[in-house]
Amino acid sequence: MFGRVLAEDIVADTALPEHDCSQFDGFAVRAEDTHGASTDTPVVLRVRGEIRLGRGVSCKLCQGETYKVPTGGLLPKGADAVVMEEQIAQSGNSIQIYDPLRVGDNVTPKGRDVRRGKRILLRGRTLRAQDEGLLAALGVKAVQVVRRPVVPIISSGNELVGDIKEKRYGKVLQSHSHTIARLVARLGGTPVDMGIAPDDVSAIREKILEGLRIGDLLITIGGCSVGDRDYVPDAINQARNSKVIVHGIRRRPGRVSGVGVVGGKPIVMLPGHIQSTFVGFYTFAIPLIHIMSGVSEESPLSIIKARMSEEVVFNGSGEFERVVLVGFERKSGGWVARPIMGDSSLLRTLVEADGFVIAPPRKTMLERDEEVDVNLVPGLSWA
Amino acid sequence: MFGRVLAEDIVADTALPEHDCSQFDGFAVRAEDTHGASTDTPVVLRVRGEIRLGRGVSCKLCQGETYKVPTGGLLPKGADAVVMEEQIAQSGNSIQIYDPLRVGDNVTPKGRDVRRGKRILLRGRTLRAQDEGLLAALGVKAVQVVRRPVVPIISSGNELVGDIKEKRYGKVLQSHSHTIARLVARLGGTPVDMGIAPDDVSAIREKILEGLRIGDLLITIGGCSVGDRDYVPDAINQARNSKVIVHGIRRRPGRVSGVGVVGGKPIVMLPGHIQSTFVGFYTFAIPLIHIMSGVSEESPLSIIKARMSEEVVFNGSGEFERVVLVGFERKSGGWVARPIMGDSSLLRTLVEADGFVIAPPRKTMLERDEEVDVNLVPGLSWA
Repeated sequence: MFGRVLAEDIVADTALPEHDCSQFDGFAVRAEDTHGASTDTPVVLRVRGEIRLGRGVSCKLCQGETYKVPTGGLLPKGADAVVMEEQIAQSGNSIQIYDPLRVGDNVTPKGRDVRRGKRILLRGRTLRAQDEGLLAALGVKAVQVVRRPVVPIISSGNELVGDIKEKRYGKVLQSHSHTIARLVARLGGTPVDMGIAPDDVSAIREKILEGLRIGDLLITIGGCSVGDRDYVPDAINQARNSKVIVHGIRRRPGRVSGVGVVGGKPIVMLPGHIQSTFVGFYTFAIPLIHIMSGVSEESPLSIIKARMSEEVVFNGSGEFERVVLVGFERKSGGWVARPIMGDSSLLRTLVEADGFVIAPPRKTMLERDEEVDVNLVPGLSWA
Repeated sequence: MFGRVLAEDIVADTALPEHDCSQFDGFAVRAEDTHGASTDTPVVLRVRGEIRLGRGVSCKLCQGETYKVPTGGLLPKGADAVVMEEQIAQSGNSIQIYDPLRVGDNVTPKGRDVRRGKRILLRGRTLRAQDEGLLAALGVKAVQVVRRPVVPIISSGNELVGDIKEKRYGKVLQSHSHTIARLVARLGGTPVDMGIAPDDVSAIREKILEGLRIGDLLITIGGCSVGDRDYVPDAINQARNSKVIVHGIRRRPGRVSGVGVVGGKPIVMLPGHIQSTFVGFYTFAIPLIHIMSGVSEESPLSIIKARMSEEVVFNGSGEFERVVLVGFERKSGGWVARPIMGDSSLLRTLVEADGFVIAPPRKTMLERDEEVDVNLVPGLSWA
């Protein structure tokens, strides 16, 4: 269940602990028996026996009596406090208590951890290690989780081949779908590699329709620039019951990214240069996958603050936001963000990146030591 | 391969791109042909043809000629620059160029992304989504990764049962091993649940020996407090070729955590209260698993700075560090750390936690708004 998103609130059907129990190794007592205890006038109690872990307790404590009890041990009937082992003196069959106890002292009451009927985990939570522990403690073996959205991925381009065996002069191994598929999986989706479509509108349209038969959200890579080979938007527009809703964003790289709908299902169009592919994915696919996977939590890890290790100048962004990939680097005790240079088609720029800064429109540089918000994406920033 | 740690440096055996290619849709030219071009005196070149993606290129460019070329398209022999489509005028079979080009303009030279022979990914790197993309682009289908350390986990305690069917009055469902197993897996180990050992020195010793036959690092939970039921350290000491190296740390909760060795393999002893279990795991098991999994990178996500949402006072820590669980909370635009109250045995405290602060010895409180380092652990802080 780890990593899955709860589709229901989980309600505790037993209390934890199930019974009052001792917080320490010590002796179970009636608090009223200890009234007036002091160093000079200790209260003496007779040890009736010893409570053992893992066994039910049927004994009853009468006035002037005590039972030895281990950490986590149940209390005998009538006991309402525990005196810690190191705070008493024992001689033969009796103990001496030097301080009065109040009702409840050193006792974990039934339900202190979890009250019966409490909603312990809420719908929308992504299950973590400690949640599985709590579910195990309550004997919950199955919970309803949100179905992972199925995300078919189509790569488009005559130059692409999917396997090194098909590699010939002029061909390029298709690689972006591997990165995108893994990001989809890491974000809670089930990626399906639909392979490569040639630069042909009807071939792409058929592959999109094929993908949508199994998918909830479809991703295309390549073929969405604005120009001669604008095949993917045309393919979407040619399908029945379809529309390209967005084509072009005020963000660079990635400006020709877009979103279409076919038969009520969203299609995210990503450009073919890897940085653009990633920025389009970040802009459109991540929010859609989040919504579809039912996640309700905002992660404090989505953005962390850092200082730029050096100046980076980018020109001509105009009305566009500018995405600057950065790697984290340790410098004089702290973490700083090192800008990653190189054009948007270079795979190694993404490999060197741990995250990215989004500079607002009309900003033309990030200064050395400038404080920036570094955006993080699971799968890209960490495995 | 995602999430696995490289056991070897990966060297590129082809260059990326494999050949010089065009950065834009445009026209391939010989730069020298464009010398002297200006708005008033454009250079006119004859269009010999069009380069298509995915096909080899055998044509040769002679003086005064050009080929139309798409983004990513190969260059004909003799071409050494590309003029962008939007920077020319085309009329019939010729184009007019208004600015001189330099050799290399708008060309991605062979190897700009990755030079042949370059070490692209280093031993010790945990593979991320973009790394898989790069490996796919290079046609690398298999890499050597470090074997995951096998981590048997033994729970100890007469009160524990492993399944709700065995649950009776006085028994408690064992749950910590679920949390610890998942953390082990998330950190790169292979957890093996060895089940429950009763509070009996030889039974524990036998289970430890059984676990070490398959395991690289063994974890015990419970039975390591200092007192009557100090079964786990005794069990380790009774094994052949064994030693308890550490028993007790200056950190609370978790102070009775320890480390032993049996037959050269480490054993991490964790206390039974969940916060103590976790702190012991953090202190000893995480560094050991990191070393054993070959990870070389330090994560910038291991600590993030936050401000305390409210004061938290802890008394009597003396020479001990104090671990304070915190949850992240959004407050007036930023993230703050909210201290989680409740004694160290409560499972819900860990469920509410996103991380933890370690206060140094003799510090008795964290103030409201105090800046703190919040420690994060994958699996606990996020899935």
